[in-house]
Amino acid sequence: MTGPGRSGGRAVLETLRAWGVRRVFTCPGSTEAAFLDATLDHPDFEVILTPHESIAVSAADGYARATGEPAVAYLHTHVGLANSLGHLNAARLAHSPVVVLTGLKPALLQAHGGFTCIQDTGRLAEPYVRSYWQSLRTEGIPEDLTRAFRLALTEPAGPTWLGLSQDLMNDTCTAPVPDPERFRPRARTAPDPERIREVAGMLATATSPLLVAGAEVARHDAVADLIALAERLGVPVMNEDRRTYERPGFPTSHPNYVGLYDVKRPVVGDSDLIVFAGCRLFTEFEVPRGPDVPESARVVHIHTDAAEIGAIHGVDLDIVADEGLALSGLLAGLPEGDVAVRTDRVAEARTEYLADTGPLPPETEGVENVAAVADALAAVVDDQTTVVGDATTTGAILLRRLPQNPPHQYFTSSSGSLGWAMGAAIGIKLAMPDRHVVAVLGDGAFQFGPQGLWVAARYQIPVTYVVINNESYAAVAAALRRYGGTAVERQEFPGKDLSGIDVAAIARGYGVHAQRLHHASELGEAMAKAKAHPGPSLIEIMTDPDYLGP
Amino acid sequence: MTGPGRSGGRAVLETLRAWGVRRVFTCPGSTEAAFLDATLDHPDFEVILTPHESIAVSAADGYARATGEPAVAYLHTHVGLANSLGHLNAARLAHSPVVVLTGLKPALLQAHGGFTCIQDTGRLAEPYVRSYWQSLRTEGIPEDLTRAFRLALTEPAGPTWLGLSQDLMNDTCTAPVPDPERFRPRARTAPDPERIREVAGMLATATSPLLVAGAEVARHDAVADLIALAERLGVPVMNEDRRTYERPGFPTSHPNYVGLYDVKRPVVGDSDLIVFAGCRLFTEFEVPRGPDVPESARVVHIHTDAAEIGAIHGVDLDIVADEGLALSGLLAGLPEGDVAVRTDRVAEARTEYLADTGPLPPETEGVENVAAVADALAAVVDDQTTVVGDATTTGAILLRRLPQNPPHQYFTSSSGSLGWAMGAAIGIKLAMPDRHVVAVLGDGAFQFGPQGLWVAARYQIPVTYVVINNESYAAVAAALRRYGGTAVERQEFPGKDLSGIDVAAIARGYGVHAQRLHHASELGEAMAKAKAHPGPSLIEIMTDPDYLGP
Repeated sequence: MTGPGRSGGRAVLETLRAWGVRRVFTCPGSTEAAFLDATLDHPDFEVILTPHESIAVSAADGYARATGEPAVAYLHTHVGLANSLGHLNAARLAHSPVVVLTGLKPALLQAHGGFTCIQDTGRLAEPYVRSYWQSLRTEGIPEDLTRAFRLALTEPAGPTWLGLSQDLMNDTCTAPVPDPERFRPRARTAPDPERIREVAGMLATATSPLLVAGAEVARHDAVADLIALAERLGVPVMNEDRRTYERPGFPTSHPNYVGLYDVKRPVVGDSDLIVFAGCRLFTEFEVPRGPDVPESARVVHIHTDAAEIGAIHGVDLDIVADEGLALSGLLAGLPEGDVAVRTDRVAEARTEYLADTGPLPPETEGVENVAAVADALAAVVDDQTTVVGDATTTGAILLRRLPQNPPHQYFTSSSGSLGWAMGAAIGIKLAMPDRHVVAVLGDGAFQFGPQGLWVAARYQIPVTYVVINNESYAAVAAALRRYGGTAVERQEFPGKDLSGIDVAAIARGYGVHAQRLHHASELGEAMAKAKAHPGPSLIEIMTDPDYLGP
Repeated sequence: MTGPGRSGGRAVLETLRAWGVRRVFTCPGSTEAAFLDATLDHPDFEVILTPHESIAVSAADGYARATGEPAVAYLHTHVGLANSLGHLNAARLAHSPVVVLTGLKPALLQAHGGFTCIQDTGRLAEPYVRSYWQSLRTEGIPEDLTRAFRLALTEPAGPTWLGLSQDLMNDTCTAPVPDPERFRPRARTAPDPERIREVAGMLATATSPLLVAGAEVARHDAVADLIALAERLGVPVMNEDRRTYERPGFPTSHPNYVGLYDVKRPVVGDSDLIVFAGCRLFTEFEVPRGPDVPESARVVHIHTDAAEIGAIHGVDLDIVADEGLALSGLLAGLPEGDVAVRTDRVAEARTEYLADTGPLPPETEGVENVAAVADALAAVVDDQTTVVGDATTTGAILLRRLPQNPPHQYFTSSSGSLGWAMGAAIGIKLAMPDRHVVAVLGDGAFQFGPQGLWVAARYQIPVTYVVINNESYAAVAAALRRYGGTAVERQEFPGKDLSGIDVAAIARGYGVHAQRLHHASELGEAMAKAKAHPGPSLIEIMTDPDYLGP
């Protein structure tokens, strides 16, 4: 842009629009006026107000995950930024290109320790972002913001942070918006051809190879490449370990799919070669009791981010590359004709996988069983449904029972920041309006984001929220059980009880259509009602408070 | 303690109990099991579960403010800590001795970047605390924790942070708990006698002196000293500027009280000497249009924290001391007989103060006026009532109209972290069970802590919540009005609308008795009902959504 200039706030909006951003998720305060004012010039630009920053960032994250495109959360000062950090961690782990803007008080007030000022606000974001910067001059804003977008999209992608002082936003900016097309990273990293030859040779000669797909396979649009390689080799494929799982890299419905990676599974233990593609190895929840990879297997790790390889376990071969280029390269590098792979392995492992129902909560008289709830959910998850999972105790049960076909049938977070799905589902629904988006949360997780309900209601974003209410922090009780002390002796679990919350009533208070169920058998009909309802809807289903998880 | 040792978790509990701590506010996860398990040995020790960390820290802050004693919030990993930072800022600004403990994954997982691990978790807390440390050995835990308590109480008091890894908590600790009485800071800082002589002389010879009381006067139990000095001199007294106001240092009912400090008030402008005691000078909200202190007045600043003096404005004389010792020293240092003070000033300024009703929202047909709500509230605030204020747009109106007599009639926060009162009121009520604690929030602020309602309901803590619901982020609209751009032209305020929330319904969903009002005249009866109700109660009162604040 040339001409007499416009406010820094308008320059921000122009830069956002140039990058194709059509909405911000924001919880503003007094420091964002110049930007908000500028949005009035563009009726097609949406200002989605979120009454808590955790919703702004998780919604932006959901949108960014579903589209691969940058999404923007605009927060207010360090107190607002702080409120969002848990979910910024989720965006970090999922390599989600969320650009977090934070309005700051004018420079003078920052120096004075003014209202809502701390020194170096961006350092709060630093553990979670690929770059943090505070604009120092109004003229620098379009370039600073361009850099934030570029780095958010530069592999390994992830969130970035930019601080914008109120005085700069109000001042005049004459700097043009740099052309995004000249700054958008497009080049993929190709694998070292020598490495590809070597691994292709290993795959052709291994008798019991296993492929493990991570979320990065889906994010880099390499699912078809993985399927082609798996089918050509006739090998079993797993999705990555539950603790790093963010979205499926391989379809659960595919005949070669044999479950989530778990070193205790026979198909893992008898592998002589494991090729991990686009996953972290590993995110540990507890100190492991043994190795996470069988010592007999050779290990190949393919990842875009060289820093992920060898992070904990040494590998036999490393391939730093876009998963699509690596996997298609491996397919092309295989010798013609037969490979050495044992042909019976897939069917065997698939049968074993299908027979193993996973954790089975005990049947308790008068209270619904969470496995039954998961099965009832599975029955309503069709090809046009996207599940956004955010349940702690129930997580493993859902992952075992719900279909997860890439790229869009299942999203979750490995961050440990509860309540992520309350906002993420909103962003995902906005990204994919034709899909039925179902957020599935535990009651504990729900409590970290009830404000998302208002956003869904206010902007008529028809997400279906399912809250599995066991009236417990079962994860806390499970930890006490593992600890094995007085709590187990007395069967008293301090910090567990979360009873007496009527989630459906809360949802109605936010203007969301809500139903409370006591039986999994009611879920089908309730879901039909929820889908038929024009706006968002919530289904609360009560389950056994005494089940502490697998 | 001697003997064969106990778990690190039990050592934590013993240390807490030695310091007189009888409860923790906690949102635990898998890393706090050893501690939670230990609490079962002590039925008198309360584990208050909060379903969001913001409530844990604000409740601990409220308790610490009301008692001056340390209070403990026990959080889970960096994601839990992050959720609490906004209110940790509130504790920082109020010099509130909140000890924040954070459970961390075992050391090995921290090194591996395991689930819910980041490098150096404590740095998140660093901008807000007086010290942060992560225990490195189980044997060090009692000492590390003792240091956290000591520093929280060491002037200028404030929050501290200690990270506790799960492996250390599970290991055996044989180290004894250091005797708190040997580590509790008791010595007050006495003022430089020369400074006292000088300022006493200035006070005796000034014709128009003014005293300004900060929250630190109340926190250091120096209100009586200030009253004695004010009465002896016959001078007007103000409470500090609204932007730093945390609690009254001087009773609003006292005949010498003439309002909140504001440089535009005639009683400020015609002062030839202003003695600021125990307040910050200043916390600016906007770039000031002129000096905050009249240039004609000599300025004396009394504060425990030397770093607060001269932070922005130069002063004529600095007194670094406990406010009680400084103020009683000044009284003792005055010459016998008459002082030069103009005798008419107090009455004049008091009359002016009483006549000035402060900001007056316009009367709008069919919607209640927030000034009427404030007056109705004022009518029910008696000597046994404590108001916990947390309203943005309405803040100034409440401060003008509600009685605020130290030490316990009014608490608020200058942090800018909304929702603080949702937890703070809980802590304050636990500290002072005989007082009627009324939390007054705007609807925007309420949305940052609805989970507090469950805590109040679950533990039957009979706080009365009053939510003034104007269905707006009026502060955002006010910022747009100050910006004076397209929003003002079109009278369209993006980011303002927060309509459609039934706060009373949400409260009922959390198990809290709730009433929704449309008229201030109903407040008295509703408040009586709320007080009569055995548990917590919420009163929602609808007000004019178009009033953007003063």
